[in-house]
Amino acid sequence: MEKQPAATFTHPLDDAELDLINRYWRAANYLSVGQIYLLDNPLLREPLKAEHIKPRLLGHWGTTPGLNFIYAHINRIIRNRDLDIIYICGPGHGGPGMVANTYLEGTYSEIYPDISTDTSGMHKLFRQFSFPGGIPSHAAPETPGSIHEGGELGYALVHAYGAVFDNPDLIAACVIGDGEAETGPLAASWHSNKFLNPARDGAVLPILHLNGYKIANPTILGRDTEEDLRHLFIGYGYEPFFVEGSDPHQMHQAMAATFEQVFDRIRAIQAEARTGMPGNFCPRWPMIVFRSPKGWTGPKEVDGKKVEGFWRAHQVPVSNCRKDANHRQILEDWMRSYDPQDLFDTDGRLKEELRALAPTAKRRMGANPHANGGLLRRELIVPNIRAYAVAVKERGRTMAQSTEVLGHYLRDILTLNSDHTNFRIFGPDETESNRLGSVFEVTDRVWMEEIKPYDVSLAPDGRVMEVLSEHLCQGWLEGYLLTGRHGLFSCYEAFIHIIDSMFNQHAKWLKVSRELPWRKPISSLNYLLTSHVWRQDHNGFSHQDPGFIDLVANKRADTVRIYLPPDANTLLWTGDHCLKTYDRINVIVAGKQPEPQWLSMDEAIKHCEAGIGIWEWAGNEQGAVEPDVVMACAGDVPTMEMLAAVDLLRQNIPELSIRVVNVVDLMALQSKEQHPHGLADAVFDKLFTPDRPVIFAYHGYPYLIHRLTYRRTNHGNIHVRGFIEEGTTTTPFDMTVLNELDRYHLAIEAIERVPGLREKAMNVIKLFRDKLEEHGRYIRQYGEDMPEISNWKWPYDSNGYRLS
Amino acid sequence: MEKQPAATFTHPLDDAELDLINRYWRAANYLSVGQIYLLDNPLLREPLKAEHIKPRLLGHWGTTPGLNFIYAHINRIIRNRDLDIIYICGPGHGGPGMVANTYLEGTYSEIYPDISTDTSGMHKLFRQFSFPGGIPSHAAPETPGSIHEGGELGYALVHAYGAVFDNPDLIAACVIGDGEAETGPLAASWHSNKFLNPARDGAVLPILHLNGYKIANPTILGRDTEEDLRHLFIGYGYEPFFVEGSDPHQMHQAMAATFEQVFDRIRAIQAEARTGMPGNFCPRWPMIVFRSPKGWTGPKEVDGKKVEGFWRAHQVPVSNCRKDANHRQILEDWMRSYDPQDLFDTDGRLKEELRALAPTAKRRMGANPHANGGLLRRELIVPNIRAYAVAVKERGRTMAQSTEVLGHYLRDILTLNSDHTNFRIFGPDETESNRLGSVFEVTDRVWMEEIKPYDVSLAPDGRVMEVLSEHLCQGWLEGYLLTGRHGLFSCYEAFIHIIDSMFNQHAKWLKVSRELPWRKPISSLNYLLTSHVWRQDHNGFSHQDPGFIDLVANKRADTVRIYLPPDANTLLWTGDHCLKTYDRINVIVAGKQPEPQWLSMDEAIKHCEAGIGIWEWAGNEQGAVEPDVVMACAGDVPTMEMLAAVDLLRQNIPELSIRVVNVVDLMALQSKEQHPHGLADAVFDKLFTPDRPVIFAYHGYPYLIHRLTYRRTNHGNIHVRGFIEEGTTTTPFDMTVLNELDRYHLAIEAIERVPGLREKAMNVIKLFRDKLEEHGRYIRQYGEDMPEISNWKWPYDSNGYRLS
Repeated sequence: MEKQPAATFTHPLDDAELDLINRYWRAANYLSVGQIYLLDNPLLREPLKAEHIKPRLLGHWGTTPGLNFIYAHINRIIRNRDLDIIYICGPGHGGPGMVANTYLEGTYSEIYPDISTDTSGMHKLFRQFSFPGGIPSHAAPETPGSIHEGGELGYALVHAYGAVFDNPDLIAACVIGDGEAETGPLAASWHSNKFLNPARDGAVLPILHLNGYKIANPTILGRDTEEDLRHLFIGYGYEPFFVEGSDPHQMHQAMAATFEQVFDRIRAIQAEARTGMPGNFCPRWPMIVFRSPKGWTGPKEVDGKKVEGFWRAHQVPVSNCRKDANHRQILEDWMRSYDPQDLFDTDGRLKEELRALAPTAKRRMGANPHANGGLLRRELIVPNIRAYAVAVKERGRTMAQSTEVLGHYLRDILTLNSDHTNFRIFGPDETESNRLGSVFEVTDRVWMEEIKPYDVSLAPDGRVMEVLSEHLCQGWLEGYLLTGRHGLFSCYEAFIHIIDSMFNQHAKWLKVSRELPWRKPISSLNYLLTSHVWRQDHNGFSHQDPGFIDLVANKRADTVRIYLPPDANTLLWTGDHCLKTYDRINVIVAGKQPEPQWLSMDEAIKHCEAGIGIWEWAGNEQGAVEPDVVMACAGDVPTMEMLAAVDLLRQNIPELSIRVVNVVDLMALQSKEQHPHGLADAVFDKLFTPDRPVIFAYHGYPYLIHRLTYRRTNHGNIHVRGFIEEGTTTTPFDMTVLNELDRYHLAIEAIERVPGLREKAMNVIKLFRDKLEEHGRYIRQYGEDMPEISNWKWPYDSNGYRLS
Repeated sequence: MEKQPAATFTHPLDDAELDLINRYWRAANYLSVGQIYLLDNPLLREPLKAEHIKPRLLGHWGTTPGLNFIYAHINRIIRNRDLDIIYICGPGHGGPGMVANTYLEGTYSEIYPDISTDTSGMHKLFRQFSFPGGIPSHAAPETPGSIHEGGELGYALVHAYGAVFDNPDLIAACVIGDGEAETGPLAASWHSNKFLNPARDGAVLPILHLNGYKIANPTILGRDTEEDLRHLFIGYGYEPFFVEGSDPHQMHQAMAATFEQVFDRIRAIQAEARTGMPGNFCPRWPMIVFRSPKGWTGPKEVDGKKVEGFWRAHQVPVSNCRKDANHRQILEDWMRSYDPQDLFDTDGRLKEELRALAPTAKRRMGANPHANGGLLRRELIVPNIRAYAVAVKERGRTMAQSTEVLGHYLRDILTLNSDHTNFRIFGPDETESNRLGSVFEVTDRVWMEEIKPYDVSLAPDGRVMEVLSEHLCQGWLEGYLLTGRHGLFSCYEAFIHIIDSMFNQHAKWLKVSRELPWRKPISSLNYLLTSHVWRQDHNGFSHQDPGFIDLVANKRADTVRIYLPPDANTLLWTGDHCLKTYDRINVIVAGKQPEPQWLSMDEAIKHCEAGIGIWEWAGNEQGAVEPDVVMACAGDVPTMEMLAAVDLLRQNIPELSIRVVNVVDLMALQSKEQHPHGLADAVFDKLFTPDRPVIFAYHGYPYLIHRLTYRRTNHGNIHVRGFIEEGTTTTPFDMTVLNELDRYHLAIEAIERVPGLREKAMNVIKLFRDKLEEHGRYIRQYGEDMPEISNWKWPYDSNGYRLS
């Protein structure tokens, strides 16, 4: 043949295949409607009665027929080309559709045998949906084949990209609703194509599903002209294909023809990248604009009001079916329009010729192991942390930059796991700024756009992903973890709040997944928050916020951990520990500036394993008698200020008996009933005493310490200092002074809290107050901290004697 | 003249004007560098010495010359056309530039007379920047003419749009850095053009400033082809203009020529919209892509490494100027390249011919009153809330939907203030869903794209702004408030976390602004969080999160308020109160479902003014003796469950003496020292008793109540129940059962906490436990709550007798 007939491009389906795929779609639509409405009579073997209908109708029909349509066509292309595809359902509300399709292909019944592929199973399938004790209304962890909830909109596309990084054979078909497309994170996600390397990564096929409406409004893109849409997606770097209409037969042909083209295109891009010279260029990946009516094939009108093709189809298009016979008739006509007898046999099984349309085994999207990443997860190979330990020759005088030390460890993780290409580091342009730069000895930043000769550490095969969008960093990492890999997100502490809600949603996903035995554990989501509140003196108030910890602490104890390592060796232990955990969210807060080092590696391991402990070498208590005061600290800067305060007190009031407690694992403060890492009350009382004053220097907002300890015996005597929302561009020490967390305030508070001491030590208090005033005058004159403060180091030798 | 010579289009500046504007730009650059580096010798009257240089160099040079360049050209267009323009400086890091320009135009010295327009003033200007006791390094509230901090990137464009809504004569020139352009919120903000009505709103001129680099990376758009950029902005609905280069003279001509064109275009669009028939269409507004080198005019190389035109110019391009004579020489050469003697006279004043380039009086961007919105703010006209009061004929049996009632009040606010066009309602497609639909009796949703015949409540002049982006809602509202207007943001409770970080930044802005006497108060930012955690039973776990309150409670007491009105009349009071406040952030959480109404309007006013109070009619305590137990509640669903629990106890254990306390204003729980709304300890003790058990049913995460009350006498006896992260798609009552906040759990806890009662009331406990089991069986069978629960109403008459 010299030339293929045009028909194969525009009408690739012959009549038989067209009929089959349309019937398959009808079956999915039928099952979707059934889930929303029916308690009983699943196959409509008898006329629909009030008691067949659920008393509360919960679910979203509007987006579902479009999702089903796309699913059927992806099935076809998988089967025809033996492709490895997962389905990211951006409109998570279309849960009925995802459930219906995985039921049709058989995966649902394999995972949930009770929901069998017969009439009895269909009955249960319908009943359980949005029903107490059943399944949620959205695509959720319970939904086979899903790595995406889609309740909070915005993250479909970034999840899709995260899933295909380092998965060269995987394609993520990603449906994006036109509502979701209005969100910020989604609008930025289109640019993910600049970070996808066709030689080593898989492909994302974005399908923008324009059904024109949100809950009660048209959508921006739904009302855009085709011309503007074309410009927009070309501008984003894609090649847009349009599939638009409402006639099912025409739409099937158009979709099948378009799929042939776009999957050819994907194959061609990959073939070129994988056979030619590796290089950095951004291929123009295809994407599809799929425009179909909202609530397609549902009721056209209800009570004289437009429903199909309008926002009234968003949730339950006809609502009063139990009480209103007319509504019930609309529902019955609607369901019968799919002709269930033509789709299911007398046992309620999908007819064999339709079953044959689904892919088989792991090619079924509901059974694709990438969507249950724990199945594919390989343990990360980690080096021994002792190899990176800072040799603390002089305790509190040896200096190091904690994150820099961790950087060496991360560099070697990259090397050790390079064959498995299953570890990446994510961050908003801050890897170098956060002192993790040594990773660039062995890798680069991913960059697919032009690279100039003078550029530094950019390459198409880099394993560090930097983009000035915390949303993209978080979303890519989530997608990467959910498909069975490992990663670390390093971020300025203040701006991690940008992804608060994404953190929430991921925590929810983990919580539910842990309750599902078939979902295998995935690697933890690890945050390294550095450039933290106390060292944003140079950037000012907008960069100063330690509140992410509080958000995290609200989540379930089995899901979250918060670590505040005070120096490099404790950070090494913490980082190493977190990277080995699974199904958790670990938050590590650690500084990047040169700081005194407190613990040898052996001490650090012991301290971190306990999570909390007395630093005997720092206090001066004697024997079995309780100290006069407990000086507690959590966080690197608070630890340094607290130890400086202890030194001030030991110098000026030598008779005062002081205990120093340091906290690395914040959850240890809670009681054992509240958190698995919580200390038993007796142990807590041993550390903090039942009755002595406790001065607590804490990294974040002070309330959290009260909240974590309010059940403890000695809680009434715990006095916490932390960030009290004071800050500007100033010196590092002045940041602590503004928030009254500095050594002088801490020492004064200790004096004032120890019964009877205040009166005896008025001169010491005055001395400290004078020092604060002197500090104020000094920085206003010279613009930097007094040398005695900025050069302060722990002035005791290994025998506890004060130097000079 | 038949035809204007082409030169006016491409070379609009004659030699004299070109020289002047270039000198003005040099002056701004000189002052910017001086702020970053110099402690002394501001005019370089002597050779630069080490002691002239600040010990800590803090600031961002990279973006600044571009910002200065744009500022100078906007000055020119303001002067030539008498335009009303504010400057939104997206790269807030370019603080030195904003300060320099407002100093040059004279506004800085008018606001801060100490920073005079002479050598002494320049000396202080330089010294104060990023210096302890001085000013922050970013554009900030301290910066005249700014409504935008720009430390957390992403919100420049949305602030610009918010500022010009209902300001027909205002133009917001909005500079967007190519770093910021990578963020999600900014990527979505471009679509704001679909919500701007050229007939009644002003204009935004977006200037995308591509200097190619972030901190340590190239930028996505900076490396895009011009063709892709053109497509992208046409796709977003704009007409892009390109100004690109590095030669200052050519760039001045190109910028001046482009400004002539784009301001002509803006004028033409507005003229057409304001003279022709009003209609809905999206004009193709102009935008500028301005590509100039990062650190333009700064050092080309330092230590053999590329600086100008590269990311090394981001902050301080040459850093070791105090210790390294070579670095110092680079700095001196750099500063002298601007030829300060040619710019400033011997007194250090900007030369007269340059002073003449700035606009005058309020046309100066640093003095534009829109950027100090409190100057323009007009009190909102509010109706008397009594007109909307629900007549509570039968306490606890009269039913109403709180937000629906508030909707009537909001409708009339729209009407009363329609002449002033200074009130808008913002929300992500949820105004109707949140039951505020009656506002559509008097207004519509803003919609500038096509309107179809069957569309509902859409119009170009609508005052309700709906877009499926919480970022846009928040940002538009911030811009609207900061320029002196009023508004309300209604949102699903769970998804307000999407703008956590924007809330943080706005709270920071307010905190600092309140400390600046010249910044006049602006209207409070009011959130109505509805569709809250307890009534997201239909949407499931992803929609269930009450944690925003916790974030808010971390902020300074003088800035935030949190209200939990339990019924419609209390919501009316709260909404009315919040809309009258200023410089605060008010969070109101209230339901939209039909709920029992507890208080008459008179009672509601009294209760809300106190913020907290005993509901005598609900308890059964007698006279002066303390009750056996205090049943406290905050939030509508917890209040209902608590009153149902009280009823259960009164029925089953009539001898138990119960006090009911309801909390509307959450901050009342704190002590007076912690919050201005805090109760004095004596008052608190009167309400909660010093020693009786307190069972507290709370809307959100229980910890917050502990945190707010941990200093109170009776804290050890306060037992809080709230959201403990359990949820799914289920029934409303089951949501409370899953979280053990339901009436039975509350009643059981009361029994168990009253000393000695448990043993006597084992049978009652069993009864309640049986009820819970019955509930579980019922919902799993029928899918809805038992009628006795869903129909429950307060069963006491006005004399306190139980009905039937």
